[in-house]
Amino acid sequence: MIVNGKAYRSIWFDKGAACVKIIDQRWLPHDFPIVELRNREAFIAAIRDMWVRGAPLIGATAAYGVATQMVIDPSDNSLQETCNLLLATRPTAINLRWALDEMKDLLEPLSERERAAIAFERATQICNEDVECNRKIGVYGLELIRELSIDKPLGAPVNILTHCNAGWLATVDWGTATSPIYHAHKENIPVHVYVDETRPRNQGAHLTAFELGQEGINHQLIVDNAGGHLMQHAKVDMVITGTDRTAANGDVCNKIGTYLKALAARDNGIPFYVALPSSTIDWTIDNGISDIPIEERDAIEVSKIWGKLDDGTIARVQISPDDTPVANPAFDVTPAHLVTGLITERGVCEASREGLLELFPERRKASSEEE
Amino acid sequence: MIVNGKAYRSIWFDKGAACVKIIDQRWLPHDFPIVELRNREAFIAAIRDMWVRGAPLIGATAAYGVATQMVIDPSDNSLQETCNLLLATRPTAINLRWALDEMKDLLEPLSERERAAIAFERATQICNEDVECNRKIGVYGLELIRELSIDKPLGAPVNILTHCNAGWLATVDWGTATSPIYHAHKENIPVHVYVDETRPRNQGAHLTAFELGQEGINHQLIVDNAGGHLMQHAKVDMVITGTDRTAANGDVCNKIGTYLKALAARDNGIPFYVALPSSTIDWTIDNGISDIPIEERDAIEVSKIWGKLDDGTIARVQISPDDTPVANPAFDVTPAHLVTGLITERGVCEASREGLLELFPERRKASSEEE
Repeated sequence: MIVNGKAYRSIWFDKGAACVKIIDQRWLPHDFPIVELRNREAFIAAIRDMWVRGAPLIGATAAYGVATQMVIDPSDNSLQETCNLLLATRPTAINLRWALDEMKDLLEPLSERERAAIAFERATQICNEDVECNRKIGVYGLELIRELSIDKPLGAPVNILTHCNAGWLATVDWGTATSPIYHAHKENIPVHVYVDETRPRNQGAHLTAFELGQEGINHQLIVDNAGGHLMQHAKVDMVITGTDRTAANGDVCNKIGTYLKALAARDNGIPFYVALPSSTIDWTIDNGISDIPIEERDAIEVSKIWGKLDDGTIARVQISPDDTPVANPAFDVTPAHLVTGLITERGVCEASREGLLELFPERRKASSEEE
Repeated sequence: MIVNGKAYRSIWFDKGAACVKIIDQRWLPHDFPIVELRNREAFIAAIRDMWVRGAPLIGATAAYGVATQMVIDPSDNSLQETCNLLLATRPTAINLRWALDEMKDLLEPLSERERAAIAFERATQICNEDVECNRKIGVYGLELIRELSIDKPLGAPVNILTHCNAGWLATVDWGTATSPIYHAHKENIPVHVYVDETRPRNQGAHLTAFELGQEGINHQLIVDNAGGHLMQHAKVDMVITGTDRTAANGDVCNKIGTYLKALAARDNGIPFYVALPSSTIDWTIDNGISDIPIEERDAIEVSKIWGKLDDGTIARVQISPDDTPVANPAFDVTPAHLVTGLITERGVCEASREGLLELFPERRKASSEEE
């Protein structure tokens, strides 16, 4: 998408520089540094230290990391070691393991001299597949926005609330929850987005507000507390969020606070949609609330907040008394009955096992075989 | 309550220093400066610049401001001018107007030489009345906590979630929502408090966490997003919040985000109580959602956050891109049907007109006369 008037993906191979480039997202929204990744160490640091984040982008970065290493040393040992090192950077990221398995399975049977070219081809393909998947989510989600826009007075925007950053910066391009919004904007459907700041890590304020501002999409940043009040006063027409993991029954695990917005949407008769690539569906889990473990993160995320001082320096301020005890669950689960629909790359479905199986019938076979 | 091992009120007359003293709350939780207020200008600054905040404390400060001025100049002109100047500091604070009207009505008929002594007597009485009112709220609320503690295993705490700061620092002592908690702690009923940080102004992180820490009460700071997840997993036994204004039908206007917690409490079968002095009941309003106007505050509260840098300096960091548009509603209204009960200085009642009138039967007469 657009930054400073120029189109970007979140990761790309620069032919001129003969290397992979990424946006070092740690400094957003205050700075927008482009970084060259030229060796394994750079890729490891980029994933481990969260220069890149978001499951799809992490997977794509790892794939390019393997490809880059195959130029330097295409041996079996190098391939194995690189996959191990990259996997260890963010051990819980599902897409990371998937991308590394893809690369290893593809490259292992090949001769050493074939590996680099094939590896770059597959890494680029992984990126393109992500972009295409998100584009489709956008096309299906666009229709939901279009329907709401029909009942609006001419020129009045469809008001969409989103939580966290399920934007293009978390994927290779388009994003998931943002893709319908970008598609609507491109079709000249007026939209206005309420951006939850998303404490504790402020991904909404840091990333989503940045993305939307750069694309010229009408938006307002709000604190996470504000959405209920806005819905109560008919200022929100729909909610679209992303998800980190979707249970097979349609329960949705997403950034902490999503559940509260789903409750408010239900209380005020506002549709609540979740946009997701089918890769986030965990077909083995049938009850998200009881069966998805919720990561408890470091207290410092709550007690100290990153931002820009008046002199432009990036710094962290402590908001609580010294040594205040903290609880910091990172995700919550929104039960399926609060979700109006799931927007996937194959279309929109009810948030239920039956709804998902209608879009992914091949899973019906798989699950009956398991039984 | 206790700070650094010593008992304080939030405002008091210091006989030795012959002046009124307050805590300059702007620097909490990072510093705890005691300030002497010796003339009208100091009182005006203290209220206007939010050295003191919270409706009851603002009223008490204004009363002492009038009394202090009566020592310096007890003339009619001085009395009138002082009341006008103090009223202009925070024009929307209901208790401020009430306290100033009290003082003016009391002092006007008196001779100039009588005014100072009577004024100090009444200001002190206003403080004591607030403390007594909050103490009673605590005694009634304590019984609700005690009931929940009975079903707990021996030594297991009653888990209470609170939002914003309805603590002793917002009143003269005890606080409203915190008073039942302090009373339970003094009775050795184990309690554990989840403290919502309460964006945008972080009153939970700055004030409630400070209060509870100083009193030695077990607590954890959480982001405003976390409460729903905690309730879903049975980690919260009850919610107690304060209120800025209670409609006659039991709708509760409180700090933005309260409504979301009430929804989560209802969804999980957790009791949601609101503690209030009857002075916050607006008997003229019968529908809080449609009839209570909600203040829209400055964007900077959302985009920039105050805190302590690593070197101890107090500074503000910007979390969003430059010039990000912001919406910042300061309060929301929780509909009465989500409120389990109102804890007042006369007891606990249902959040309804009938419930309130049972505790305040003198209003039944007043409202039938109005009809």
